Amino acid sequence: MKEIIQNAWIIRTGGVIKKIPFNGYVVIEHGKITGIHEGVPSPAQIAESDEVTNASGKWLMPGLVNTHGHLGSSLLRGHGDDLKLDTWLKTVMWPNEQKFDSKLVRTAAELAISEMIRSGTTTYLDMYHLSMPELAEMALKRGFRAVLCRGMIAFGSSEEQEAKLQESIDLSKHYHNQGEGRIRVMLSPHAPYTCPPSFYERTAELASEHGLMIHTHASETASETAKHFEEYGMRPVEHLYQLGVLHQDVLLAHAVHLNEAELDFLKETNTAVSHNPMSNLKLGSGIADIPSMQQKGIRIAIGTDSTASNNSLDLFEEMRFAAMIHKGMYQDPTVTKAEEILRMGTSEGANILGYQKTGDIREGFDADLILIDPDQPHLTPWTPERIHSHLIYAVKGSDVTDVWIQGKRQMNKKELLMIDEEKILYESNELVKYFE
Amino acid sequence: MKEIIQNAWIIRTGGVIKKIPFNGYVVIEHGKITGIHEGVPSPAQIAESDEVTNASGKWLMPGLVNTHGHLGSSLLRGHGDDLKLDTWLKTVMWPNEQKFDSKLVRTAAELAISEMIRSGTTTYLDMYHLSMPELAEMALKRGFRAVLCRGMIAFGSSEEQEAKLQESIDLSKHYHNQGEGRIRVMLSPHAPYTCPPSFYERTAELASEHGLMIHTHASETASETAKHFEEYGMRPVEHLYQLGVLHQDVLLAHAVHLNEAELDFLKETNTAVSHNPMSNLKLGSGIADIPSMQQKGIRIAIGTDSTASNNSLDLFEEMRFAAMIHKGMYQDPTVTKAEEILRMGTSEGANILGYQKTGDIREGFDADLILIDPDQPHLTPWTPERIHSHLIYAVKGSDVTDVWIQGKRQMNKKELLMIDEEKILYESNELVKYFE
Repeated sequence: MKEIIQNAWIIRTGGVIKKIPFNGYVVIEHGKITGIHEGVPSPAQIAESDEVTNASGKWLMPGLVNTHGHLGSSLLRGHGDDLKLDTWLKTVMWPNEQKFDSKLVRTAAELAISEMIRSGTTTYLDMYHLSMPELAEMALKRGFRAVLCRGMIAFGSSEEQEAKLQESIDLSKHYHNQGEGRIRVMLSPHAPYTCPPSFYERTAELASEHGLMIHTHASETASETAKHFEEYGMRPVEHLYQLGVLHQDVLLAHAVHLNEAELDFLKETNTAVSHNPMSNLKLGSGIADIPSMQQKGIRIAIGTDSTASNNSLDLFEEMRFAAMIHKGMYQDPTVTKAEEILRMGTSEGANILGYQKTGDIREGFDADLILIDPDQPHLTPWTPERIHSHLIYAVKGSDVTDVWIQGKRQMNKKELLMIDEEKILYESNELVKYFE
Repeated sequence: MKEIIQNAWIIRTGGVIKKIPFNGYVVIEHGKITGIHEGVPSPAQIAESDEVTNASGKWLMPGLVNTHGHLGSSLLRGHGDDLKLDTWLKTVMWPNEQKFDSKLVRTAAELAISEMIRSGTTTYLDMYHLSMPELAEMALKRGFRAVLCRGMIAFGSSEEQEAKLQESIDLSKHYHNQGEGRIRVMLSPHAPYTCPPSFYERTAELASEHGLMIHTHASETASETAKHFEEYGMRPVEHLYQLGVLHQDVLLAHAVHLNEAELDFLKETNTAVSHNPMSNLKLGSGIADIPSMQQKGIRIAIGTDSTASNNSLDLFEEMRFAAMIHKGMYQDPTVTKAEEILRMGTSEGANILGYQKTGDIREGFDADLILIDPDQPHLTPWTPERIHSHLIYAVKGSDVTDVWIQGKRQMNKKELLMIDEEKILYESNELVKYFE
């Protein structure tokens, strides 16, 4: 299978060299990018291709990488906002989540994937406690690129804890690195306030034994950080460091409330952070100190969290928040530059999730690509030099017209190919009629 | 001319009564809303209408009100970002703006209006120093609702200052309250750092004499505030208060750096604020203390500023930033609630600009209305109870399908009717090829 995407403005986001987008074509063979060229392909190249896409006037860029989410919560979008965290958890999240069954979770996941693909995300991470094998099977069969994390709350007995870990290990045995590397599995203790230190130690042991990464929430709110200190005499991230959990194969979600020493622990261990600015703002959790992390050289990616607390999965908008709020906080427009944020949302995000060969337009990389239609007032005027700026400060998810994952078309001219969208929208609206 | 919009979910945003959106129809006669009803119109009502729009499954709400912008700068979108303010002004804004002519300003304004109508804005304020009579004439003829402010920098001689004021007065004589009240004119000293105190006094005198409002920038950055204090021994807003300029017919843009006493001056005088969160973040100006203003009962509206510093005119996104950043700053999700922000972006914004009869769906109000298509993954699931939340936390400008201003259709199923959009996009891209 050989494909060509031609007449596109080709945007590369990774690497150290800043290159102005140029007009040209990309060759894809068996899901991998095998050629990136200025100009137009020869008639012979066209003739020997199975599929040729004319992207005339459009922008071609790597698909976006969403490094933190909970797909199963999607049906809670807009169901209780502007509430104190504990009120929200007690009156909205917990009573409803208790009623979730596999049909609901499956529908919620497909809804979330529809929204993500529509808005240009080609890689997602899903931390959830229900139906993970079913969701893994779906991602494998339909060609999605997914990092699957069986979220583990470890309040229970040691048998219950072991059972959850075993579920995660089983998931990894069936799915880790399947789909020519598309599917990845991580071990996912929920958070230091829901898992005892011993559980983190056990998780780290198993992660090392099975060659898996760890993904966990950490220091999302000031109150959980203060309570942790009260209980253990250490802040959560310091505690994870002391336990030997922090490591280059660990990804922390949120990391809003970290002190200087904790930032240094992240740097020392090369631990990565998933920055979720919109969820952190909306829940009143605070604003992670991304400029300080950047200055220390800590690895940072972008995530949306779930629609229960965001309420959007549009990573373009998430990148915009990430680019803008820190400028305001620091009263300095030179922090979190457009190109830095763009890298976090693509190549750096992929790299942090353990994908070595996607997240940029490079030869030998998997063809996770999206097309953007710039022929609209809100992206006008544009020149090749302005494209990087527009991608962060002006593009909306709705500007994405076409999406490929591993060379397979997922969206064609705004039509989703691997999801029955009409059915999912209908079922989603039906399912929530009885929510509390 | 009688129109009916039927089968819509009708969303009211103003008033003190919170009402869940209901399905029904709106009757419009000669540009005004004359009926708002649940259910469906009778066959007789349909028969006697000149135009019937079937909005089945869509949301009908008041058009958005953008209370601060500079349309003439639109072609600078993305032309130099992430720069220190003085570098940006000296290398990007000033050298290019000096070359602007009336054709460029006209094109930039039409581009901005295209973007605003597409994203649901039915009222805009434009502060600019060039071509204002021409832009007023365009707004009048094409049915836009516009507040026109001939921006005045008063560094020059008193003759030059008077000439600028005279231009503003002339503009008001020709256009203020024209178009059955659609066009309004305000007097617009640029800012306390570009206009001496005497100029503000003279402006206030003329405003009172001619029954005009005043619109000015104030305390956008920390440095201008500090410099003002150095020069006058008073902060800018305190100074405007001492000069007797603050008044219920005054609208301040930005108001980022205000102390407690200055907030009290705003409250005491009933002076209004245009909150421009995205521009304030992107330029590193800071974050206005909106929750404190709300607590004091200060009148607040929303504005985008120009695409040179935002870089978007999508007021849905601006409202989202306004709703979210203060929750993060205060670490409190209960501040800046969705319904409060929605009101700022519609009824309160209209009221602050001096429009007594638009900004909400009410009998006797001008029919400034927009339709939103919720049948999309990012707005799913939805119930009538979730609509207000979705409008602030999930809707994108691109979800708007139809727009009416004063009962006249401006956008029909995503097609702009009063602007030659293809021509404007082409010309905009041509005009910037020679920018510095």
